[in-house]
Amino acid sequence: MKIEVINTGTEILLGHVTNTHLGYLAKELFSIGHRIERQITVPDGEAIRQALSESLNRADLILITGGLGPTSDDITREITAELLDKPLQFIPEIWNHIVERFKRREKIPADNNKRQAMIPEGAIYFQNENGTAPGLLIPYNHQILVLLPGPPRELTLMWEKQAFPWLKQNLFKSTEIVQKQWRILGIGESDLEREIEPKLRAIGLTEIGYCARAGEVDLRVISSNRSHLDQAHQIVTKTFGKAIYSLGNQSMEAIVVELAQRQNRKIATAESCTGGLIAHRLTLVSGSSSVFEYGWVTYANAAKIKELKVPSETLNQFGAVSRETVLAMAQGALDESHADIAVAVSGIAGPTEGNAERPVGTCWIAWATKDRTWTENYLLSQNRETFKMMASQQALDGIRQWLSSL
Amino acid sequence: MKIEVINTGTEILLGHVTNTHLGYLAKELFSIGHRIERQITVPDGEAIRQALSESLNRADLILITGGLGPTSDDITREITAELLDKPLQFIPEIWNHIVERFKRREKIPADNNKRQAMIPEGAIYFQNENGTAPGLLIPYNHQILVLLPGPPRELTLMWEKQAFPWLKQNLFKSTEIVQKQWRILGIGESDLEREIEPKLRAIGLTEIGYCARAGEVDLRVISSNRSHLDQAHQIVTKTFGKAIYSLGNQSMEAIVVELAQRQNRKIATAESCTGGLIAHRLTLVSGSSSVFEYGWVTYANAAKIKELKVPSETLNQFGAVSRETVLAMAQGALDESHADIAVAVSGIAGPTEGNAERPVGTCWIAWATKDRTWTENYLLSQNRETFKMMASQQALDGIRQWLSSL
Repeated sequence: MKIEVINTGTEILLGHVTNTHLGYLAKELFSIGHRIERQITVPDGEAIRQALSESLNRADLILITGGLGPTSDDITREITAELLDKPLQFIPEIWNHIVERFKRREKIPADNNKRQAMIPEGAIYFQNENGTAPGLLIPYNHQILVLLPGPPRELTLMWEKQAFPWLKQNLFKSTEIVQKQWRILGIGESDLEREIEPKLRAIGLTEIGYCARAGEVDLRVISSNRSHLDQAHQIVTKTFGKAIYSLGNQSMEAIVVELAQRQNRKIATAESCTGGLIAHRLTLVSGSSSVFEYGWVTYANAAKIKELKVPSETLNQFGAVSRETVLAMAQGALDESHADIAVAVSGIAGPTEGNAERPVGTCWIAWATKDRTWTENYLLSQNRETFKMMASQQALDGIRQWLSSL
Repeated sequence: MKIEVINTGTEILLGHVTNTHLGYLAKELFSIGHRIERQITVPDGEAIRQALSESLNRADLILITGGLGPTSDDITREITAELLDKPLQFIPEIWNHIVERFKRREKIPADNNKRQAMIPEGAIYFQNENGTAPGLLIPYNHQILVLLPGPPRELTLMWEKQAFPWLKQNLFKSTEIVQKQWRILGIGESDLEREIEPKLRAIGLTEIGYCARAGEVDLRVISSNRSHLDQAHQIVTKTFGKAIYSLGNQSMEAIVVELAQRQNRKIATAESCTGGLIAHRLTLVSGSSSVFEYGWVTYANAAKIKELKVPSETLNQFGAVSRETVLAMAQGALDESHADIAVAVSGIAGPTEGNAERPVGTCWIAWATKDRTWTENYLLSQNRETFKMMASQQALDGIRQWLSSL
């Protein structure tokens, strides 16, 4: 099966927005053993016409993102209908959905929203639970076109709940392919590959994928042979042990919250260089209020002293980025919050303020519980955003490992 | 000038790697008024042949990334030479560079590295300071092809130091188009378009683009006529006033930090439903430590009482999500931190815990300064992540407006 993706969006070609749809759809399709053969980005407007006619000459399945909105440069629907020679028809159910959506915000849809309720003859539509533009699935001879809205949260929900299930049921019938995934922290992609790939190939696996993020890798294996996958699981677990923090796609914060709920333990955070990111990640998880009550962002030394009772002598003698300071921060947060575990982070996020002894990327993390405290020292990315992400990941992983050991 | 980009890389089409080259090159080209008209991703190997022949029919400048390495599926150089009918020639200087590079690592290049020292007749080459594969610039009739290595740190250095300077000097002699952009908060895409597009068209502008995020829109106008753009700026400013928070691509948090630095004011945060996101966003900005010292994530009522001195009667009488509670939180944060402005947020991020009186999406925000306090009440998204983003955006915008009024 030949699959092509057409992404529309001037903002992608201007570099204002990174195309994340391609990676998302690629991973989803790979999970059932399919690959994207070609992808193209065109600006909003007329340019999609040529791209789509070319794809129609080659592909069995064409996924198109964007250009379904109400504005004048959103013409993916109209051009597709023209090219396929299918007249547009007004669907009252779609219009009702749009009107209802506006009503909930005490608004009335504009006339140009009406275009969103028009679909090409013979198309299947997917109501948009996170927006107004419906998705469209259009069978055309032996081909299938799927039109998805551009905003990521509209696209992903619609793909997950409607488009992908439809395709799995009606198009990808024969392939019974299973995937296993492991999220592994603290190892780079090439080291991981060198260590695991020969072992996996030895048991007959060939479809092995890696997805690297800063300081961690998702290892993915697909096969139609379930016993191969079980063997792979044994091998990967034996090789990477505690560094595996997730099976599947669950995020670190979701795992930590779930473990804390199960163990009935509370978490507190005391953040300097991560600046609230650990708390933000925990509170992204619905239900986190049952395990997370207190967080501090003590960005200044004065705040560390006043809020977390870090002795000023500790700061003077060892500096804010030190084992002694993070230990005092964690202990202070534990005492003040009466949580079961407190984590504290202090480091040099950069780009300035590094020096030879403590370069940009230096990070100290401490964990404190009633029974013990422990610390780790890392040298992480020199990019500020990546640094914060990696530091928060290590901080959460320490909590995960503690909760798992109970 | 028509510019197209061809990215080769199976890993992009499998979703293992996000294509960051496109955004990088797009921003670089736009900085001198050029844009990419079309971008395509093909897997490693033969697929580049068709993509390149298509581009040769349309584009004046073709940028190709990847496929210059030593392995058997790296054949961008060979296919390009074939298509342009230019024989490959061995260049001793390139080979010496490769041998030197290996020598520094106490290695000897393999035979297949020799292919990297072959260039099409008439091509200009760029030595690779971060790798072995040289870049190539090939004039062909009136067209220019530029072949760049795939690894980002090889590509960016070569582009910055060699390819872009060459193109600026020899190809892009005059700047043709200019862009203006406004980031506008608190309005949806279709309302915005209805309000502004007729006015912009009336002064002769046709290239009008919109990029919507939750609760806000980037409005973008491109023209070669600077006076049209100046008029557009007047019109947009008059229409949307204070709702415009950024000209260009600067983020809300970067603007707030910059304003606070300029005004020499300090910010404190007291977060319930946003869970640390406001602090996280502020601390993403390098240099934010000069304006942000104290942040609290008081997720539980007990934390609001203990850390921010919210009276328990206030919580009992009005609830955590109320004008009275956020006011007390903001005042508590201001008193404790001695900042110049404190912002407090409390709301119902969902998906559970909403009710008829206070549905999911309800959000109260308070700001406190020495002179006055004020509050706003919003009904935001029902999606947890989007809710947090929108709430943090409104919280920061209140700070921005206060700082701008000083």
